[in-house]
Amino acid sequence: MKVHVIGIGLIGGSMVLDIKSLHPDATIYGIDTNESHLAEAITLGVIDKVGTFDDLAEADFVIVSVPVDVALTLMPKVLDAIGDNTIVFEVGSTKIPICEAVANHQRRRNFIATHPIAGTEFSGPSAAIKNLFQGKTNIICEVEKTTFKLQEKALDLFRSLGMRIRYMDPKSHDKHIAYVSHLSHISSFMLGKTVINKEKDEQDIFDMAGSGFESTVRLAKSSPAMWTPIFKQNKKQVVKSLEEYISNLTLFKELLANDDFDAIFNEMQSVNKIKEILNGMKK
Amino acid sequence: MKVHVIGIGLIGGSMVLDIKSLHPDATIYGIDTNESHLAEAITLGVIDKVGTFDDLAEADFVIVSVPVDVALTLMPKVLDAIGDNTIVFEVGSTKIPICEAVANHQRRRNFIATHPIAGTEFSGPSAAIKNLFQGKTNIICEVEKTTFKLQEKALDLFRSLGMRIRYMDPKSHDKHIAYVSHLSHISSFMLGKTVINKEKDEQDIFDMAGSGFESTVRLAKSSPAMWTPIFKQNKKQVVKSLEEYISNLTLFKELLANDDFDAIFNEMQSVNKIKEILNGMKK
Repeated sequence: MKVHVIGIGLIGGSMVLDIKSLHPDATIYGIDTNESHLAEAITLGVIDKVGTFDDLAEADFVIVSVPVDVALTLMPKVLDAIGDNTIVFEVGSTKIPICEAVANHQRRRNFIATHPIAGTEFSGPSAAIKNLFQGKTNIICEVEKTTFKLQEKALDLFRSLGMRIRYMDPKSHDKHIAYVSHLSHISSFMLGKTVINKEKDEQDIFDMAGSGFESTVRLAKSSPAMWTPIFKQNKKQVVKSLEEYISNLTLFKELLANDDFDAIFNEMQSVNKIKEILNGMKK
Repeated sequence: MKVHVIGIGLIGGSMVLDIKSLHPDATIYGIDTNESHLAEAITLGVIDKVGTFDDLAEADFVIVSVPVDVALTLMPKVLDAIGDNTIVFEVGSTKIPICEAVANHQRRRNFIATHPIAGTEFSGPSAAIKNLFQGKTNIICEVEKTTFKLQEKALDLFRSLGMRIRYMDPKSHDKHIAYVSHLSHISSFMLGKTVINKEKDEQDIFDMAGSGFESTVRLAKSSPAMWTPIFKQNKKQVVKSLEEYISNLTLFKELLANDDFDAIFNEMQSVNKIKEILNGMKK
Protein backbone atom coordinates (compact mmCIF):
# COMPACT_ATOMS: atom_id res chain seq x y z
CA MET A 1 0.00 0.00 0.00
CA LYS A 2 1.30 3.44 -0.93
CA VAL A 3 0.15 6.37 1.14
CA HIS A 4 1.13 9.96 0.38
CA VAL A 5 0.72 12.73 2.89
CA ILE A 6 1.00 16.29 1.58
CA GLY A 7 1.65 18.66 4.48
CA ILE A 8 3.16 16.73 7.36
CA GLY A 9 1.75 18.20 10.54
CA LEU A 10 -0.62 17.36 13.34
CA ILE A 11 -3.47 15.82 11.30
CA GLY A 12 -1.67 14.30 8.32
CA GLY A 13 1.24 13.15 10.44
CA SER A 14 -0.95 11.54 13.09
CA MET A 15 -3.00 9.82 10.41
CA VAL A 16 -0.02 8.17 8.73
CA LEU A 17 1.42 7.12 12.10
CA ASP A 18 -1.77 5.10 12.71
CA ILE A 19 -1.86 3.80 9.14
CA LYS A 20 1.72 2.55 9.49
CA SER A 21 0.83 0.78 12.75
CA LEU A 22 -2.17 -0.91 11.13
CA HIS A 23 -0.34 -1.68 7.86
CA PRO A 24 3.35 -2.20 8.61
CA ASP A 25 3.96 -3.05 4.94
CA ALA A 26 2.64 0.33 3.77
CA THR A 27 5.09 2.87 2.41
CA ILE A 28 4.44 6.39 3.64
CA TYR A 29 5.59 9.16 1.28
CA GLY A 30 5.72 12.74 2.49
CA ILE A 31 5.50 15.94 0.46
CA ASP A 32 6.01 19.31 2.13
CA THR A 33 7.25 22.73 1.02
CA ASN A 34 9.18 22.94 4.29
CA GLU A 35 12.44 21.00 3.82
CA SER A 36 13.21 20.85 7.53
CA HIS A 37 9.76 19.37 8.21
CA LEU A 38 10.51 16.61 5.70
CA ALA A 39 13.80 15.78 7.40
CA GLU A 40 12.18 15.94 10.83
CA ALA A 41 9.32 13.67 9.69
CA ILE A 42 11.79 11.03 8.50
CA THR A 43 13.82 11.24 11.71
CA LEU A 44 10.66 10.90 13.80
CA GLY A 45 9.48 7.92 11.72
CA VAL A 46 6.33 9.78 10.64
CA ILE A 47 7.12 9.15 6.94
CA ASP A 48 9.30 6.55 5.22
CA LYS A 49 10.52 8.69 2.35
CA VAL A 50 10.14 11.96 0.53
CA GLY A 51 7.58 11.76 -2.28
CA THR A 52 7.01 13.72 -5.48
CA PHE A 53 3.94 14.60 -7.53
CA ASP A 54 5.16 12.13 -10.18
CA ASP A 55 4.67 9.27 -7.69
CA LEU A 56 1.01 10.15 -7.10
CA ALA A 57 -0.16 8.09 -10.11
CA GLU A 58 0.78 4.96 -8.14
CA ALA A 59 -0.70 6.08 -4.80
CA ASP A 60 -3.50 4.22 -3.01
CA PHE A 61 -4.26 7.12 -0.65
CA VAL A 62 -3.32 10.78 -0.83
CA ILE A 63 -3.94 12.78 2.34
CA VAL A 64 -3.85 16.54 1.81
CA SER A 65 -3.38 18.28 5.14
CA VAL A 66 -2.29 21.82 4.35
CA PRO A 67 -3.74 25.23 5.31
CA VAL A 68 -7.20 25.59 3.75
CA ASP A 69 -6.15 28.36 1.35
CA VAL A 70 -3.25 26.29 0.01
CA ALA A 71 -5.59 23.33 -0.46
CA LEU A 72 -7.72 25.25 -2.96
CA THR A 73 -4.91 25.64 -5.48
CA LEU A 74 -3.10 22.43 -4.60
CA MET A 75 -6.03 20.01 -4.84
CA PRO A 76 -6.66 20.36 -8.62
CA LYS A 77 -2.95 19.67 -9.22
CA VAL A 78 -3.10 16.61 -6.99
CA LEU A 79 -6.15 15.32 -8.86
CA ASP A 80 -4.34 15.93 -12.16
CA ALA A 81 -1.47 13.72 -10.99
CA ILE A 82 -3.22 10.71 -9.41
CA GLY A 83 -4.13 7.34 -10.90
CA ASP A 84 -7.61 5.93 -11.54
CA ASN A 85 -7.69 3.98 -8.29
CA THR A 86 -6.24 6.65 -6.04
CA ILE A 87 -8.51 8.14 -3.36
CA VAL A 88 -7.63 11.67 -2.27
CA PHE A 89 -8.97 13.36 0.82
CA GLU A 90 -8.29 16.58 2.63
CA VAL A 91 -8.97 17.36 6.26
CA GLY A 92 -9.53 21.12 6.49
CA SER A 93 -11.85 22.94 8.86
CA THR A 94 -13.93 24.56 6.06
CA LYS A 95 -15.77 22.55 3.44
CA ILE A 96 -17.63 24.85 1.01
CA PRO A 97 -14.52 26.32 -0.70
CA ILE A 98 -12.71 23.02 -1.27
CA CYS A 99 -15.84 21.31 -2.59
CA GLU A 100 -16.31 24.21 -5.01
CA ALA A 101 -12.65 24.14 -6.05
CA VAL A 102 -12.87 20.54 -7.25
CA ALA A 103 -16.54 20.51 -8.35
CA ASN A 104 -15.81 20.42 -12.07
CA HIS A 105 -12.54 18.52 -12.02
CA GLN A 106 -12.57 15.40 -14.20
CA ARG A 107 -11.23 13.41 -11.24
CA ARG A 108 -13.87 14.75 -8.77
CA ARG A 109 -14.98 11.17 -8.14
CA ASN A 110 -11.53 10.28 -6.77
CA PHE A 111 -11.89 12.94 -4.06
CA ILE A 112 -13.64 12.79 -0.68
CA ALA A 113 -14.11 15.88 1.50
CA THR A 114 -13.56 15.15 5.19
CA HIS A 115 -13.12 16.95 8.49
CA PRO A 116 -11.79 14.77 11.30
CA ILE A 117 -12.81 16.53 14.52
CA ALA A 118 -9.55 15.89 16.28
CA GLY A 119 -6.47 17.84 17.12
CA THR A 120 -4.36 19.61 19.65
CA GLU A 121 -3.05 23.17 19.71
CA PHE A 122 0.34 22.04 18.33
CA SER A 123 1.58 21.91 14.74
CA GLY A 124 4.39 20.54 12.57
CA PRO A 125 5.68 16.92 12.30
CA SER A 126 6.54 16.75 16.02
CA ALA A 127 2.84 17.32 16.78
CA ALA A 128 1.95 13.98 15.15
CA ILE A 129 0.73 11.47 17.73
CA LYS A 130 -0.73 7.97 17.64
CA ASN A 131 -4.42 7.22 18.26
CA LEU A 132 -5.44 10.85 17.76
CA PHE A 133 -8.60 9.79 15.91
CA GLN A 134 -9.83 7.04 18.23
CA GLY A 135 -13.49 7.69 19.09
CA LYS A 136 -13.53 10.99 17.18
CA THR A 137 -16.06 12.09 14.55
CA ASN A 138 -15.11 12.37 10.90
CA ILE A 139 -17.50 14.62 9.01
CA ILE A 140 -17.82 13.71 5.34
CA CYS A 141 -19.34 16.07 2.81
CA GLU A 142 -20.89 15.32 -0.59
CA VAL A 143 -20.17 11.60 -0.23
CA GLU A 144 -22.38 10.88 -3.24
CA LYS A 145 -19.88 12.64 -5.49
CA THR A 146 -17.17 10.07 -4.78
CA THR A 147 -16.99 6.76 -6.68
CA PHE A 148 -18.62 4.11 -4.53
CA LYS A 149 -15.59 1.78 -4.57
CA LEU A 150 -13.29 4.58 -3.42
CA GLN A 151 -15.82 5.74 -0.80
CA GLU A 152 -15.66 2.26 0.70
CA LYS A 153 -11.87 2.28 0.67
CA ALA A 154 -11.77 5.63 2.49
CA LEU A 155 -14.49 4.70 4.99
CA ASP A 156 -12.73 1.44 5.84
CA LEU A 157 -9.59 3.43 6.55
CA PHE A 158 -11.41 5.98 8.74
CA ARG A 159 -13.14 3.23 10.71
CA SER A 160 -9.84 1.38 11.18
CA LEU A 161 -8.46 4.59 12.76
CA GLY A 162 -11.38 4.46 15.23
CA MET A 163 -13.49 7.24 13.76
CA ARG A 164 -17.27 7.56 13.77
CA ILE A 165 -18.63 8.84 10.46
CA ARG A 166 -21.17 11.63 10.08
CA TYR A 167 -22.42 12.88 6.73
CA MET A 168 -23.21 16.55 6.23
CA ASP A 169 -23.53 19.03 3.38
CA PRO A 170 -20.70 21.60 3.13
CA LYS A 171 -22.99 24.52 3.99
CA SER A 172 -24.26 22.94 7.22
CA HIS A 173 -20.73 21.91 8.14
CA ASP A 174 -19.32 25.41 7.76
CA LYS A 175 -22.20 26.97 9.68
CA HIS A 176 -22.10 24.60 12.66
CA ILE A 177 -18.32 24.43 12.86
CA ALA A 178 -18.14 28.24 13.17
CA TYR A 179 -19.90 27.88 16.52
CA VAL A 180 -18.35 24.75 17.99
CA SER A 181 -14.78 25.29 16.81
CA HIS A 182 -13.89 28.55 15.10
CA LEU A 183 -15.53 30.74 17.76
CA SER A 184 -13.69 28.88 20.55
CA HIS A 185 -10.38 29.78 18.95
CA ILE A 186 -11.23 33.48 18.74
CA SER A 187 -12.59 33.57 22.31
CA SER A 188 -9.34 32.00 23.46
CA PHE A 189 -7.03 34.27 21.44
CA MET A 190 -8.84 37.41 22.62
CA LEU A 191 -8.89 36.23 26.24
CA GLY A 192 -5.13 35.75 26.00
CA LYS A 193 -4.77 39.21 24.45
CA THR A 194 -6.86 40.86 27.19
CA VAL A 195 -4.79 39.30 29.95
CA ILE A 196 -1.41 39.90 28.28
CA ASN A 197 -2.29 43.56 27.62
CA LYS A 198 -3.35 44.04 31.22
CA GLU A 199 -0.59 42.14 32.92
CA LYS A 200 2.55 43.75 31.59
CA ASP A 201 4.46 41.71 34.15
CA GLU A 202 4.21 38.13 32.88
CA GLN A 203 5.24 36.89 36.30
CA ASP A 204 1.83 38.01 37.56
CA ILE A 205 0.10 35.82 34.97
CA PHE A 206 2.42 32.97 35.87
CA ASP A 207 1.75 33.31 39.59
CA MET A 208 -1.99 33.91 39.52
CA ALA A 209 -3.22 31.84 36.62
CA GLY A 210 -4.63 28.46 37.49
CA SER A 211 -5.74 25.49 35.47
CA GLY A 212 -8.97 27.32 34.59
CA PHE A 213 -7.17 30.10 32.74
CA GLU A 214 -4.85 27.56 31.15
CA SER A 215 -7.82 25.61 29.83
CA THR A 216 -9.61 28.64 28.38
CA VAL A 217 -6.51 30.06 26.64
CA ARG A 218 -5.09 26.76 25.42
CA LEU A 219 -6.28 27.35 21.85
CA ALA A 220 -4.45 30.70 21.78
CA LYS A 221 -1.30 28.65 21.19
CA SER A 222 -2.68 27.62 17.78
CA SER A 223 -0.95 28.45 14.50
CA PRO A 224 -1.97 31.80 12.93
CA ALA A 225 -0.87 30.46 9.51
CA MET A 226 -3.40 27.68 9.80
CA TRP A 227 -6.24 29.73 11.33
CA THR A 228 -6.14 32.97 9.30
CA PRO A 229 -7.29 31.25 6.07
CA ILE A 230 -9.96 29.31 7.97
CA PHE A 231 -11.45 32.54 9.33
CA LYS A 232 -11.16 34.07 5.85
CA GLN A 233 -12.97 31.19 4.15
CA ASN A 234 -15.70 30.99 6.78
CA LYS A 235 -15.87 34.73 7.38
CA LYS A 236 -19.64 35.16 7.16
CA GLN A 237 -20.47 32.47 9.71
CA VAL A 238 -17.59 33.38 12.00
CA VAL A 239 -18.60 37.06 12.09
CA LYS A 240 -22.17 35.98 12.90
CA SER A 241 -21.07 33.70 15.74
CA LEU A 242 -18.81 36.45 17.09
CA GLU A 243 -21.68 38.93 17.05
CA GLU A 244 -23.84 36.56 19.08
CA TYR A 245 -21.00 35.87 21.51
CA ILE A 246 -20.29 39.59 21.99
CA SER A 247 -24.00 40.22 22.50
CA ASN A 248 -24.17 37.51 25.22
CA LEU A 249 -21.09 38.93 26.95
CA THR A 250 -22.51 42.44 26.79
CA LEU A 251 -25.80 41.29 28.34
CA PHE A 252 -23.89 39.55 31.14
CA LYS A 253 -21.85 42.72 31.74
CA GLU A 254 -25.02 44.80 31.94
CA LEU A 255 -26.68 42.42 34.39
CA LEU A 256 -23.57 42.73 36.51
CA ALA A 257 -23.45 46.54 36.24
CA ASN A 258 -27.14 46.66 37.21
CA ASP A 259 -26.64 44.37 40.21
CA ASP A 260 -29.09 41.81 38.83
CA PHE A 261 -27.40 38.85 40.50
CA ASP A 262 -30.45 36.60 40.31
CA ALA A 263 -30.26 36.89 36.54
CA ILE A 264 -26.47 36.30 36.66
CA PHE A 265 -27.10 33.10 38.63
CA ASN A 266 -29.76 31.97 36.16
CA GLU A 267 -27.54 32.71 33.16
CA MET A 268 -24.83 30.44 34.56
CA GLN A 269 -27.22 27.74 35.70
CA SER A 270 -28.81 27.45 32.29
CA VAL A 271 -25.39 26.90 30.71
CA ASN A 272 -24.43 24.25 33.28
CA LYS A 273 -26.14 21.64 31.12
CA ILE A 274 -23.05 21.80 28.88
CA LYS A 275 -21.78 19.30 31.49
CA GLU A 276 -24.15 16.59 30.23
CA ILE A 277 -23.48 17.50 26.60
CA LEU A 278 -19.73 17.21 27.14
CA ASN A 279 -20.18 13.96 29.05
CA GLY A 280 -22.06 12.72 26.00
CA MET A 281 -18.95 13.61 23.99
CA LYS A 282 -16.90 11.20 26.04
CA LYS A 283 -19.12 8.20 25.35
CA MET B 1 -3.85 17.99 65.96
CA LYS B 2 -7.43 19.16 65.51
CA VAL B 3 -8.42 20.54 62.13
CA HIS B 4 -11.87 21.96 61.39
CA VAL B 5 -13.13 22.47 57.89
CA ILE B 6 -16.23 24.63 57.47
CA GLY B 7 -17.77 23.99 54.06
CA ILE B 8 -16.64 20.61 52.76
CA GLY B 9 -16.17 20.95 49.04
CA LEU B 10 -13.42 21.01 46.45
CA ILE B 11 -10.93 23.28 48.26
CA GLY B 12 -11.60 22.56 51.93
CA GLY B 13 -12.11 18.85 51.29
CA SER B 14 -8.95 18.49 49.20
CA MET B 15 -6.97 20.38 51.84
CA VAL B 16 -7.98 18.11 54.71
CA LEU B 17 -7.37 14.99 52.59
CA ASP B 18 -3.73 16.06 52.26
CA ILE B 19 -3.48 17.12 55.91
CA LYS B 20 -4.74 13.69 56.99
CA SER B 21 -2.15 11.99 54.74
CA LEU B 22 0.65 14.10 56.23
CA HIS B 23 -0.64 13.85 59.83
CA PRO B 24 -2.43 10.50 60.27
CA ASP B 25 -2.99 11.33 63.95
CA ALA B 26 -4.92 14.52 63.15
CA THR B 27 -8.67 14.57 63.74
CA ILE B 28 -10.61 16.23 60.95
CA TYR B 29 -13.90 17.83 62.01
CA GLY B 30 -16.40 18.95 59.38
CA ILE B 31 -19.07 21.62 59.64
CA ASP B 32 -21.51 22.15 56.79
CA THR B 33 -25.10 23.43 56.48
CA ASN B 34 -25.74 20.63 54.02
CA GLU B 35 -26.45 17.45 56.06
CA SER B 36 -26.03 15.13 53.09
CA HIS B 37 -22.61 16.65 52.37
CA LEU B 38 -21.57 15.86 55.95
CA ALA B 39 -22.67 12.25 55.61
CA GLU B 40 -21.00 11.97 52.20
CA ALA B 41 -17.76 13.48 53.54
CA ILE B 42 -17.61 10.88 56.34
CA THR B 43 -18.34 8.02 53.94
CA LEU B 44 -15.64 9.25 51.55
CA GLY B 45 -13.15 9.61 54.42
CA VAL B 46 -12.76 13.34 53.81
CA ILE B 47 -13.59 14.12 57.46
CA ASP B 48 -13.44 11.99 60.61
CA LYS B 49 -16.43 13.44 62.43
CA VAL B 50 -19.02 16.19 62.43
CA GLY B 51 -17.88 19.25 64.37
CA THR B 52 -19.68 22.10 66.11
CA PHE B 53 -18.84 25.75 66.77
CA ASP B 54 -18.36 24.82 70.45
CA ASP B 55 -15.37 22.64 69.48
CA LEU B 56 -13.58 25.51 67.75
CA ALA B 57 -12.00 26.71 71.01
CA GLU B 58 -9.82 23.59 70.92
CA ALA B 59 -8.97 23.73 67.20
CA ASP B 60 -5.45 24.07 65.83
CA PHE B 61 -6.58 24.98 62.33
CA VAL B 62 -9.93 26.19 61.04
CA ILE B 63 -10.34 26.21 57.26
CA VAL B 64 -13.30 28.24 56.05
CA SER B 65 -14.18 27.24 52.49
CA VAL B 66 -17.66 28.55 51.82
CA PRO B 67 -19.07 30.87 49.12
CA VAL B 68 -17.51 34.31 49.51
CA ASP B 69 -20.76 36.00 50.57
CA VAL B 70 -21.35 33.44 53.32
CA ALA B 71 -17.76 33.93 54.53
CA LEU B 72 -18.40 37.58 55.35
CA THR B 73 -21.02 36.83 58.01
CA LEU B 74 -19.57 33.50 59.10
CA MET B 75 -16.00 34.58 59.75
CA PRO B 76 -16.68 36.95 62.69
CA LYS B 77 -18.65 34.12 64.37
CA VAL B 78 -15.78 31.70 63.80
CA LEU B 79 -13.31 34.18 65.28
CA ASP B 80 -15.63 34.64 68.29
CA ALA B 81 -15.54 30.88 68.93
CA ILE B 82 -11.85 29.98 68.53
CA GLY B 83 -9.09 29.67 71.12
CA ASP B 84 -5.98 31.84 71.50
CA ASN B 85 -3.77 29.43 69.54
CA THR B 86 -6.18 28.66 66.73
CA ILE B 87 -5.26 29.87 63.23
CA VAL B 88 -8.20 30.47 60.90
CA PHE B 89 -7.93 30.91 57.16
CA GLU B 90 -10.35 31.16 54.28
CA VAL B 91 -9.69 30.42 50.67
CA GLY B 92 -12.09 32.57 48.63
CA SER B 93 -11.47 34.13 45.23
CA THR B 94 -11.95 37.74 46.45
CA LYS B 95 -9.88 39.30 49.21
CA ILE B 96 -10.95 42.91 49.84
CA PRO B 97 -14.39 42.12 51.37
CA ILE B 98 -13.21 39.39 53.75
CA CYS B 99 -10.25 41.47 54.95
CA GLU B 100 -12.64 44.37 55.63
CA ALA B 101 -15.14 42.08 57.40
CA VAL B 102 -12.58 41.01 60.00
CA ALA B 103 -10.49 44.21 60.14
CA ASN B 104 -11.70 45.30 63.55
CA HIS B 105 -12.34 41.92 65.12
CA GLN B 106 -10.49 41.40 68.39
CA ARG B 107 -9.16 38.09 67.03
CA ARG B 108 -7.97 39.57 63.69
CA ARG B 109 -4.47 38.34 64.52
CA ASN B 110 -5.70 34.71 64.51
CA PHE B 111 -6.86 35.07 60.90
CA ILE B 112 -4.89 34.75 57.65
CA ALA B 113 -6.41 35.65 54.26
CA THR B 114 -5.40 33.20 51.52
CA HIS B 115 -6.29 32.27 47.97
CA PRO B 116 -4.88 28.94 46.84
CA ILE B 117 -4.85 29.10 43.03
CA ALA B 118 -6.03 25.56 42.54
CA GLY B 119 -9.24 23.85 41.65
CA THR B 120 -11.33 22.03 39.13
CA GLU B 121 -14.81 22.78 37.78
CA PHE B 122 -16.40 20.36 40.26
CA SER B 123 -17.88 21.00 43.71
CA GLY B 124 -19.12 19.21 46.85
CA PRO B 125 -17.28 16.60 48.99
CA SER B 126 -16.89 14.20 46.06
CA ALA B 127 -14.81 16.86 44.29
CA ALA B 128 -12.12 16.62 47.00
CA ILE B 129 -8.91 15.10 45.62
CA LYS B 130 -5.43 14.48 46.96
CA ASN B 131 -2.41 16.56 45.91
CA LEU B 132 -4.56 19.34 44.47
CA PHE B 133 -2.19 22.00 45.82
CA GLN B 134 1.14 20.49 44.78
CA GLY B 135 3.16 23.13 42.92
CA LYS B 136 0.34 25.69 43.06
CA THR B 137 0.53 29.29 44.26
CA ASN B 138 -1.08 30.38 47.51
CA ILE B 139 -1.65 34.11 47.58
CA ILE B 140 -1.60 35.57 51.07
CA CYS B 141 -2.95 39.01 51.84
CA GLU B 142 -2.15 41.33 54.77
CA VAL B 143 0.23 38.79 56.30
CA GLU B 144 1.51 41.44 58.71
CA LYS B 145 -1.88 41.48 60.44
CA THR B 146 -1.52 37.89 61.62
CA THR B 147 0.41 36.98 64.80
CA PHE B 148 3.90 35.87 63.74
CA LYS B 149 3.68 32.50 65.53
CA LEU B 150 0.40 31.66 63.80
CA GLN B 151 1.72 32.92 60.42
CA GLU B 152 4.53 30.39 60.75
CA LYS B 153 2.12 27.61 61.61
CA ALA B 154 -0.04 28.38 58.57
CA LEU B 155 2.93 28.80 56.22
CA ASP B 156 4.41 25.49 57.34
CA LEU B 157 1.11 23.84 56.55
CA PHE B 158 0.84 25.45 53.09
CA ARG B 159 4.42 24.47 52.24
CA SER B 160 3.80 20.91 53.41
CA LEU B 161 0.90 20.75 50.92
CA GLY B 162 3.38 21.71 48.18
CA MET B 163 2.32 25.33 47.71
CA ARG B 164 4.48 28.29 46.69
CA ILE B 165 3.67 31.42 48.67
CA ARG B 166 3.12 34.85 47.17
CA TYR B 167 2.24 37.93 49.22
CA MET B 168 -0.10 40.56 47.82
CA ASP B 169 -2.35 43.33 49.09
CA PRO B 170 -6.10 42.61 48.78
CA LYS B 171 -6.65 45.36 46.21
CA SER B 172 -3.96 44.06 43.84
CA HIS B 173 -5.21 40.51 44.32
CA ASP B 174 -8.79 41.38 43.37
CA LYS B 175 -7.70 43.42 40.37
CA HIS B 176 -5.35 40.82 38.89
CA ILE B 177 -7.58 37.83 39.64
CA ALA B 178 -10.45 39.46 37.71
CA TYR B 179 -8.32 39.08 34.58
CA VAL B 180 -6.65 35.71 35.05
CA SER B 181 -9.57 33.87 36.65
CA HIS B 182 -12.95 35.60 36.86
CA LEU B 183 -12.94 36.70 33.20
CA SER B 184 -12.09 33.14 32.04
CA HIS B 185 -15.21 31.87 33.76
CA ILE B 186 -17.47 34.42 32.08
CA SER B 187 -15.88 33.86 28.65
CA SER B 188 -16.51 30.16 29.11
CA PHE B 189 -20.11 30.48 30.33
CA MET B 190 -21.02 32.85 27.50
CA LEU B 191 -19.30 30.65 24.89
CA GLY B 192 -21.38 27.74 26.15
CA LYS B 193 -24.52 29.88 26.01
CA THR B 194 -23.81 31.02 22.44
CA VAL B 195 -23.34 27.46 21.22
CA ILE B 196 -26.30 26.00 23.14
CA ASN B 197 -28.59 28.78 21.87
CA LYS B 198 -27.48 28.20 18.29
CA GLU B 199 -27.43 24.43 18.30
CA LYS B 200 -30.91 23.51 19.45
CA ASP B 201 -30.05 19.93 18.56
CA GLU B 202 -27.52 18.90 21.21
CA GLN B 203 -26.48 15.97 19.05
CA ASP B 204 -24.87 18.49 16.69
CA ILE B 205 -22.73 19.86 19.52
CA PHE B 206 -21.89 16.32 20.55
CA ASP B 207 -20.88 15.29 17.03
CA MET B 208 -18.97 18.39 15.99
CA ALA B 209 -17.31 19.60 19.17
CA GLY B 210 -13.71 18.57 19.64
CA SER B 211 -11.27 18.82 22.48
CA GLY B 212 -10.79 22.53 21.70
CA PHE B 213 -14.39 23.41 22.43
CA GLU B 214 -14.35 21.14 25.47
CA SER B 215 -11.32 22.98 26.84
CA THR B 216 -12.75 26.47 26.32
CA VAL B 217 -16.15 25.67 27.88
CA ARG B 218 -14.88 23.51 30.74
CA LEU B 219 -15.36 26.32 33.28
CA ALA B 220 -19.03 26.65 32.24
CA LYS B 221 -19.63 23.57 34.40
CA SER B 222 -18.75 25.62 37.49
CA SER B 223 -21.19 26.23 40.34
CA PRO B 224 -23.39 29.36 39.95
CA ALA B 225 -23.85 29.42 43.75
CA MET B 226 -20.11 29.81 44.19
CA TRP B 227 -19.50 32.20 41.31
CA THR B 228 -22.40 34.65 41.61
CA PRO B 229 -21.13 36.14 44.92
CA ILE B 230 -17.57 36.27 43.54
CA PHE B 231 -18.73 38.38 40.59
CA LYS B 232 -20.82 40.50 42.97
CA GLN B 233 -17.92 41.19 45.33
CA ASN B 234 -15.46 41.91 42.53
CA LYS B 235 -17.99 43.62 40.28
CA LYS B 236 -15.98 46.72 39.43
CA GLN B 237 -12.88 44.85 38.26
CA VAL B 238 -14.87 42.13 36.52
CA VAL B 239 -16.93 44.67 34.56
CA LYS B 240 -13.69 46.41 33.55
CA SER B 241 -12.06 43.18 32.37
CA LEU B 242 -15.24 42.26 30.46
CA GLU B 243 -15.26 45.64 28.73
CA GLU B 244 -11.69 45.14 27.58
CA TYR B 245 -12.43 41.59 26.42
CA ILE B 246 -15.53 42.70 24.48
CA SER B 247 -13.53 45.53 22.94
CA ASN B 248 -10.82 43.09 21.76
CA LEU B 249 -13.42 40.71 20.32
CA THR B 250 -15.15 43.60 18.56
CA LEU B 251 -11.89 44.76 17.01
CA PHE B 252 -11.19 41.21 15.80
CA LYS B 253 -14.67 41.00 14.30
CA GLU B 254 -14.18 44.32 12.49
CA LEU B 255 -10.82 43.25 11.09
CA LEU B 256 -12.52 40.13 9.79
CA ALA B 257 -15.48 42.06 8.36
CA ASN B 258 -13.04 44.42 6.64
CA ASP B 259 -10.97 41.55 5.17
CA ASP B 260 -7.85 42.72 6.98
CA PHE B 261 -6.35 39.26 7.25
CA ASP B 262 -2.79 40.49 7.75
CA ALA B 263 -3.98 42.18 10.93
CA ILE B 264 -5.91 39.03 11.93
CA PHE B 265 -2.70 37.03 11.54
CA ASN B 266 -0.72 39.54 13.58
CA GLU B 267 -3.35 39.62 16.34
CA MET B 268 -3.07 35.86 16.76
CA GLN B 269 0.70 35.77 16.44
CA SER B 270 1.16 38.36 19.18
CA VAL B 271 -0.96 36.25 21.56
CA ASN B 272 0.96 33.05 20.75
CA LYS B 273 3.50 34.00 23.42
CA ILE B 274 0.93 32.81 25.96
CA LYS B 275 2.58 29.45 25.14
CA GLU B 276 5.79 30.42 26.90
CA ILE B 277 3.88 32.02 29.78
CA LEU B 278 1.85 28.84 30.29
CA ASN B 279 4.96 26.69 30.01
CA GLY B 280 6.36 28.84 32.79
CA MET B 281 3.29 27.88 34.83
CA LYS B 282 4.24 24.22 34.60
CA LYS B 283 7.72 24.68 36.05
